[in-house]
Amino acid sequence: MTRKELFDQIQHKQSYLCVGLDADMSRIPSHLHHRSDPIFEFNKQIIDATKDLCVAYKPNVAFYEALGPKGWESLQKTLEYIPEEHFTIADAKRGDIGNTSRLYAKAFFETLNFDAVTVAPYMGEDSVKPFLEFENNWVILLALTSNKGSQNFQFTKQENDQPLYEKVMQTAQTWGSPKNLMFVVGATHPEKFKEIRRIAPDHFLLVPGIGAQGGDLKGVSNYGQNDHCGLLVNSSRGIIYAGDGEDFAEKARQSAAAVQLQMAEILAA
Amino acid sequence: MTRKELFDQIQHKQSYLCVGLDADMSRIPSHLHHRSDPIFEFNKQIIDATKDLCVAYKPNVAFYEALGPKGWESLQKTLEYIPEEHFTIADAKRGDIGNTSRLYAKAFFETLNFDAVTVAPYMGEDSVKPFLEFENNWVILLALTSNKGSQNFQFTKQENDQPLYEKVMQTAQTWGSPKNLMFVVGATHPEKFKEIRRIAPDHFLLVPGIGAQGGDLKGVSNYGQNDHCGLLVNSSRGIIYAGDGEDFAEKARQSAAAVQLQMAEILAA
Repeated sequence: MTRKELFDQIQHKQSYLCVGLDADMSRIPSHLHHRSDPIFEFNKQIIDATKDLCVAYKPNVAFYEALGPKGWESLQKTLEYIPEEHFTIADAKRGDIGNTSRLYAKAFFETLNFDAVTVAPYMGEDSVKPFLEFENNWVILLALTSNKGSQNFQFTKQENDQPLYEKVMQTAQTWGSPKNLMFVVGATHPEKFKEIRRIAPDHFLLVPGIGAQGGDLKGVSNYGQNDHCGLLVNSSRGIIYAGDGEDFAEKARQSAAAVQLQMAEILAA
Repeated sequence: MTRKELFDQIQHKQSYLCVGLDADMSRIPSHLHHRSDPIFEFNKQIIDATKDLCVAYKPNVAFYEALGPKGWESLQKTLEYIPEEHFTIADAKRGDIGNTSRLYAKAFFETLNFDAVTVAPYMGEDSVKPFLEFENNWVILLALTSNKGSQNFQFTKQENDQPLYEKVMQTAQTWGSPKNLMFVVGATHPEKFKEIRRIAPDHFLLVPGIGAQGGDLKGVSNYGQNDHCGLLVNSSRGIIYAGDGEDFAEKARQSAAAVQLQMAEILAA
């Protein structure tokens, strides 16, 4: 999917919501457990209930990998089920030496047909570039993550007083463009979005951390938006586990609708 | 496997060789292609031919992931085939927020039963600790990698003139001990091993980059050894693709034997 197509979807749906498909056997409703593929069944109903309210889906690959080969089948079926118009993100946080990153890119862009994959920056240029070589696919590079451990290294100040995550964002802009490179910036750092937009005015930001992790949608959107919206705000647990009974999909819809309504107001303002 | 058991194996075999099982359909001998699981068949013959010469096997997970669910089955069968006495490393370079890292740990330590997994440090403490909570399992944290892109961020100098990879090694020692934490240090930086041993005298180092990537075994061993050997030196392509005909396993054995002989000399000195 191109940057323009993504922006068109955002305008059409008045939403920049990404729903995180982190389906976990210990949390999905018990009435699904007897199905032949409970994880896929859960995702299917979540997708049916939220597809007009969101522009992207982001399965977290760990949740599928933890189930072995069967989990990969559930992931593959989920990907095939997501409507064409949605932007799909493999939240995989991969990154390795060149010949290996090329294989990860193949796994997510060809075997599974995702639009985008999240990539970790620690190993540098040749670990990221193989993902950028696929046409019409995207790298979403970790910059400033939503978790507490983001304090350990991402804020490390260099000689020139610049924190590491800014160096990552500046350096990566010499590898990719706003047409194939986004950055992960956690909603738990709303005060940083103004500075981040100075560094990367045109790139889309994937923003985890609203909902369960406590980030604030309005704060993030105020400083984070650009003329192409420039934001994909993710919610996982806050939406998919809004209910745990037979009406879980309806509860998920209500939760997604509440976020979408807020987004429509922000986009209109 | 405990640190002592690993050291016992090293002394017994006079080897600190780790064989990288990076089986790739485009490079395995053509006479295996008609087998029902060519990747597993290749690994099986490589393991049979090298198991007395090495103390560890390291499948690079990307190679299996690129094949979809079938690849995960080949990986699982490979793990089950590796003899009990070998230390097994999932070269996966994972790392995510806490609840997600916990699932990756489960995938590699429980579902697949690896001894160790490589982990990327960028997301900090809560992304690494869930892996350290498994008893008798190991984290091998990326510190200074063997690839060219290691120059981009790992050498970033902080205010106190310390490069980032040193900060990673120092910080991580407050999370784990030499009994459950190793570091990845590439053989392509032999001049750094002396300094690295000052920072982490007791930890094992997993050393990729000899062979295809050009690193030097003697240089690395001179400065990198400690009183528990402290090194696992990996070779992947240099061993498993030493031959490409029907005698590929015998060629792999010859290549592994040459490395083991060098290691025995180094250990004796």
